[in-house]
Amino acid sequence: MSDALWAQGRSVRDAATALAQSADDVRRAVLSDVADALEARVEEVVAANALDLAVYDDLGPGRDRLTLSPARVGAMAQTLREVAALADPLFEVAESFTRPNGLRVEKIRVPLGVVGVVYENRPNVTCDVAGLCVRSGNAAFLRGSSSAQRSNELLVALWREALEKEGLPAEAVSLVADPSREAAAAFMGLVGVIDCLVPRGGPSLIAAMREHARVPYVLDGDGNCHVYVDRAADLAMARAIVANAKTSRPGVCNAAETLLVHRDVADAFLAELPDALPGVELRADERARVALAGAVPATEADFATEFLDLVLAVGVVDSLEEAIAHVARYGTGHSEAIVTNDPAAADAWVRRVDAAAVLVNASTRFIDGGELGLGGEVGISTQKLHARGPMGLRELTCLKWVVRGEGQVR
Amino acid sequence: MSDALWAQGRSVRDAATALAQSADDVRRAVLSDVADALEARVEEVVAANALDLAVYDDLGPGRDRLTLSPARVGAMAQTLREVAALADPLFEVAESFTRPNGLRVEKIRVPLGVVGVVYENRPNVTCDVAGLCVRSGNAAFLRGSSSAQRSNELLVALWREALEKEGLPAEAVSLVADPSREAAAAFMGLVGVIDCLVPRGGPSLIAAMREHARVPYVLDGDGNCHVYVDRAADLAMARAIVANAKTSRPGVCNAAETLLVHRDVADAFLAELPDALPGVELRADERARVALAGAVPATEADFATEFLDLVLAVGVVDSLEEAIAHVARYGTGHSEAIVTNDPAAADAWVRRVDAAAVLVNASTRFIDGGELGLGGEVGISTQKLHARGPMGLRELTCLKWVVRGEGQVR
Repeated sequence: MSDALWAQGRSVRDAATALAQSADDVRRAVLSDVADALEARVEEVVAANALDLAVYDDLGPGRDRLTLSPARVGAMAQTLREVAALADPLFEVAESFTRPNGLRVEKIRVPLGVVGVVYENRPNVTCDVAGLCVRSGNAAFLRGSSSAQRSNELLVALWREALEKEGLPAEAVSLVADPSREAAAAFMGLVGVIDCLVPRGGPSLIAAMREHARVPYVLDGDGNCHVYVDRAADLAMARAIVANAKTSRPGVCNAAETLLVHRDVADAFLAELPDALPGVELRADERARVALAGAVPATEADFATEFLDLVLAVGVVDSLEEAIAHVARYGTGHSEAIVTNDPAAADAWVRRVDAAAVLVNASTRFIDGGELGLGGEVGISTQKLHARGPMGLRELTCLKWVVRGEGQVR
Repeated sequence: MSDALWAQGRSVRDAATALAQSADDVRRAVLSDVADALEARVEEVVAANALDLAVYDDLGPGRDRLTLSPARVGAMAQTLREVAALADPLFEVAESFTRPNGLRVEKIRVPLGVVGVVYENRPNVTCDVAGLCVRSGNAAFLRGSSSAQRSNELLVALWREALEKEGLPAEAVSLVADPSREAAAAFMGLVGVIDCLVPRGGPSLIAAMREHARVPYVLDGDGNCHVYVDRAADLAMARAIVANAKTSRPGVCNAAETLLVHRDVADAFLAELPDALPGVELRADERARVALAGAVPATEADFATEFLDLVLAVGVVDSLEEAIAHVARYGTGHSEAIVTNDPAAADAWVRRVDAAAVLVNASTRFIDGGELGLGGEVGISTQKLHARGPMGLRELTCLKWVVRGEGQVR
């Protein structure tokens, strides 16, 4: 196995070298060829997916994430067309200056090389990641889950046909053939093959990454996101934002998990909260329960939990200061929102909350590559190294130093 | 031990939070205070260093790296003054745009947080790293070697005095008290404390990092750097560049280790090479030995070796293409130079050689934070994630998303 994986890795590496030199219009063409193929062969895609679903015995939310309906295949094609239309991120001169000795220095934007992604179910990730990688001149080396293997194999085949049609090596989009856990661990150890590894999954995948990864990686971690309703908040706006952040899609990482309310507006805001959040279980601290008589008492653990469900922890704070401290203690560095009409409070939140994204008067649900205009994302980084938040085209590049002289020596 | 290390880590983390909010002039003042202290207390610094040297029994190059002369202490102070004078990298708006739904989106530059560095000997690194970290709003968490512990403790004490004088937490520059290998492994596992770990050392440190690191890290790896003398090279310029790249300081990572020469100029260039490189052992491939009769035959391993010594591998290539392929095979992604007067050859080299830095008609020795105007470097990254090449102030920052709206929901 391992030898085969290394051999495959070398072929992906070689493909990355070719892709890094390819022209913008060729890379665009690959994406639109795949979009065409998805639309023309939607029944074939759905049929491959049905083979995966037929042997999938989990009836939980994983089943939905595994399913490719004709509409979802259409959405995948549409996403590729959008990414194809984005500006080329490559060869931009990000900095340039001349040194006193006459050396002309530039930093130019180039692809990372081979981007590895480990993910579960969600065959749409196969297409989304391949699209962002190819558009930005990177090879995509994909390790999907066994549950989605038939779907993923067909999707990768469409990519390889398109790459070859446009004169690029098919190996620029490659799927690990063996979806076992052992192969995943070996995949994370492909030093010299993978330039950037992104895990998309839960805590067990993150733990496996920390243990097994020997290649550089960016963690796509938990989202224990907060909405803080300041004393200067428009309470109707705050209700709409909290309802959206909690209920529009509770199972995703940018959903809100904790609501913090300033004491000056706590009674007024919390009294109407149950009506704004029908079906949501509220777990409230002692002070919040004054206005939320029916709420479950919140434990310390509740404030540290990413529920990914219709459950919301609720706390009352004495000040903006206390809200910021609460987020510093329990937050996971994903997306943190304040609702306020006080510019000083907004600025303090923006500057002082340490997270991939901070929001003022907007739902945490906007921290998403599609919503921010990136055409999707390879992952949402909750670490600070390399990139924070949604990783789109630019986050799949790095800056190379170029120094030009006339014979300078030290 | 481990409990004490975690407790120290939390104190560094808290200091980083304070430093991230500190004003530009306060951070500048800390650096100039330390520069003043180094100059005023140079004898004390040299005396502490003498205690380290007294028990150091290695007479190799490590001893020189450990030594702090008065001149070197003065140079450390000078470097801090230069870094203090650099522009503040923080709170720059790196990108901004408005979405169709009216959301105003920015990416603003903020510190990484806690920067951890593991290094050997070289007490000047203590000061250089602390300077770059504090200037960029980061806390420096330092794990020096036992050989330099007395020197490092005194230098860190100077930093802590300056930080306190300027109203910042002393823990913003902290040294691991226990310089054992076990403590180093524990240090690399401080998840949630260290935002970016940089190892500065040889292959065994890199291997230890891959094994033990559980925090995000940037590898400062080997420099197997090449100089390629193209057929369109000015041969006198090429001689000067090769001599400088090989001999000006052979023990550093940006020194050249392999010379490649185009066959059309091989005889003319190589015939004069021994005179240009007195004292350098040449290990030449079969074709180079035609003009270098006295050279040792090069083995495959020679082309893969970072000699860090007065040894140079020499090969003749048929084409630019072959030179690029040679670098792709043996290079370590550090610094790669071409000497040519052919703009097309220069452009091909710049675009196609995959390294942190590519140079045209200049010595590889310029790939250094000081030479490039960064005021030094925390390390020189040979990976692609986060930063490539010398890591200065900007490379110690990350971009945070800021989204402002008027109540937008999805």
